[in-house]
Amino acid sequence: MENHSDTLDTLFQALADPTRRAVVQRLGQGPAAVSDLAEPFQMGLPAFLKHISVLEAAGLVSSIKVGRVRTCTLEEQRLEAAAGWFEEQRDLWKARYEQLDDLLGTLKQRKTQ
Amino acid sequence: MENHSDTLDTLFQALADPTRRAVVQRLGQGPAAVSDLAEPFQMGLPAFLKHISVLEAAGLVSSIKVGRVRTCTLEEQRLEAAAGWFEEQRDLWKARYEQLDDLLGTLKQRKTQ
Repeated sequence: MENHSDTLDTLFQALADPTRRAVVQRLGQGPAAVSDLAEPFQMGLPAFLKHISVLEAAGLVSSIKVGRVRTCTLEEQRLEAAAGWFEEQRDLWKARYEQLDDLLGTLKQRKTQ
Repeated sequence: MENHSDTLDTLFQALADPTRRAVVQRLGQGPAAVSDLAEPFQMGLPAFLKHISVLEAAGLVSSIKVGRVRTCTLEEQRLEAAAGWFEEQRDLWKARYEQLDDLLGTLKQRKTQ
């Protein structure tokens, strides 16, 4: 449980940045070279590589270097782990609203009896 | 778009902490007094109130004080905004996999022709 919590800390921290979210979004279309990924951003390569490192540390991105080209791939199941947290929360509200519906139903019934 | 991005920064930042996620989860079951929310945590009230402030600043929690009791409520639509980002990413992969399926289909067809 603690490990799962640490994982979510790192995941949400990694996603709390517009550059890193843009990289995740771009990689959703398929693997890409670091140089292509860096192109749209107004920052030096060292600064961009730090963002890639944060994404790698969070397990959201993996990369492989062939010759001089480093290619990044999105680790979709990791993104699903973060998405799963939101689904758990939604299940909680739903259960609560269903209970409220049941309660309202019971109250209405009592009123008509 | 920039504002939306700022919102996501603040949202993910707020959720990158186990205490704050636990508070969000607890409030998913219904509104609660700050003192009740603080109870399970091994920290002083000032430290806990800072976490509540971060959640309020991110728009995830609203609170109202009546007499000496401050009651917190989860702002579910805000959490849905963050969840929505993941759904957008999922739509991107799906579109990509469908394109790959189409391509594979075309290649198979050519092979059998």
